[in-house]
Amino acid sequence: MTVSTPHAFDLETRVEAVASNRYGATVTDRWNALNGGPNGGYALAFCLRALSNEMPFPDPLVVSASFMRPVEKGQAEIHTEMLRTGRRMATGEAQLIQGGKPAVHTVASFADLELGQGPSLVNGEPPALGPPDDLVDLAEGLSMPELTLLDRVEYRMTHKPDWLTANSDGDPKAEFWMRFKDGRDADTLSLPMLADAFAPVVVAMGALSFTVQLTAHVRARPAPGWLACRAESRFVFGGYHEEDFEIWDSEGKLVAQSRQLGLIRS
Amino acid sequence: MTVSTPHAFDLETRVEAVASNRYGATVTDRWNALNGGPNGGYALAFCLRALSNEMPFPDPLVVSASFMRPVEKGQAEIHTEMLRTGRRMATGEAQLIQGGKPAVHTVASFADLELGQGPSLVNGEPPALGPPDDLVDLAEGLSMPELTLLDRVEYRMTHKPDWLTANSDGDPKAEFWMRFKDGRDADTLSLPMLADAFAPVVVAMGALSFTVQLTAHVRARPAPGWLACRAESRFVFGGYHEEDFEIWDSEGKLVAQSRQLGLIRS
Repeated sequence: MTVSTPHAFDLETRVEAVASNRYGATVTDRWNALNGGPNGGYALAFCLRALSNEMPFPDPLVVSASFMRPVEKGQAEIHTEMLRTGRRMATGEAQLIQGGKPAVHTVASFADLELGQGPSLVNGEPPALGPPDDLVDLAEGLSMPELTLLDRVEYRMTHKPDWLTANSDGDPKAEFWMRFKDGRDADTLSLPMLADAFAPVVVAMGALSFTVQLTAHVRARPAPGWLACRAESRFVFGGYHEEDFEIWDSEGKLVAQSRQLGLIRS
Repeated sequence: MTVSTPHAFDLETRVEAVASNRYGATVTDRWNALNGGPNGGYALAFCLRALSNEMPFPDPLVVSASFMRPVEKGQAEIHTEMLRTGRRMATGEAQLIQGGKPAVHTVASFADLELGQGPSLVNGEPPALGPPDDLVDLAEGLSMPELTLLDRVEYRMTHKPDWLTANSDGDPKAEFWMRFKDGRDADTLSLPMLADAFAPVVVAMGALSFTVQLTAHVRARPAPGWLACRAESRFVFGGYHEEDFEIWDSEGKLVAQSRQLGLIRS
């Protein structure tokens, strides 16, 4: 008999029902991003975990999240509310609350992604990256212990991004492989988190960013293995930027697409 | 002394405060879309009108809406709740409710778009359409009286789309000029509605669509005049499709960008 060890993502996004539509959770400091605090997508994952308990469908088809206050390491409450349960789809909201104040507000519609049918068109390609094992590990030789997300998520790129080594004046674009470092395969519940698990590509312009809002479409259950990702910001002005993110699975299928609006921090 | 006549958009999206965080509204049948009922963006406009009454900032920077039930002509209530008011941004939610049931759930963050600054990059161009007066009026010669949106919004294209004339097997893409038919100029409050005011471009594939979720980024206050629009669906499979929409103003500035997830209806 084998007992499988729970993976970090499952352990560290756990929610515990404490009352009807109320969950307790512990936000760890093991998914910290460039800003020094817990990654937004990690905070969002708690909301989706809580919602998934109440949904009659397995897959978060579309998820939108507003980030209103920085999330901090420590205790949090998740409040959920179902808005509509239909035959093919159910919609609900979840808020992550710390110190009595809402930090993340999420609305998500769940469905069963195996049931869909209809016309088919894919006007796009996964990034042409080559085998992950031939590429550079983003974390290798990097001395940023505060960026604990690197202990949880692994990245492979054709070359290290300029912004890691210098004040850069580059294109806000990136392509890379990504996976959980402990070997957990991605599923539809973790894809929205992974869509926010890379540095905002506007760092290539010397800008820092705070995510105001993120909407992710989860389009298919990913095959096991590495995920090929593409991030790009095309419209950076007026103190804000958008960022588009695509995730393709190891079989070359688009599994998620997200867009966020970020506030440029000077 | 001249008295200006109120424009249709302002009259027909009016909300009346009836209690704290409660508004009454009348959904008209004068913004009906291809599906025979009120356009989703029109329903969303009521939510934004109600929210704008409570916001300390003028511009809906980012708006996300979940469409849970078809909206119908007649009375509606709008319930609002402010989630956070900050120094630069405020976030709230609004629901359009008919027959006691939520039909549209909206979360929006408002800001002042004139205040932003920072680095600038625009990696994109407005559609190259030529002067609107040289182009084809989408409504001309069209006999679809039930599509009342055409009495409110005007479109100019280089040629009529194939799907109007035949069962089409075309690309789900479109470029066109758009404006309010009564001469009202677009503002930031009407842009999210306008981002949903064209037929879903998957009609070019012979598919009908119901919008599940729409997220719009409003990036600048539009200059007066026509708006140049680009709509495209790149990922149509599994019974769903995304649609991206860009709106550029008459001075060539990107003023809004939206993405929606639609359910294909057979």
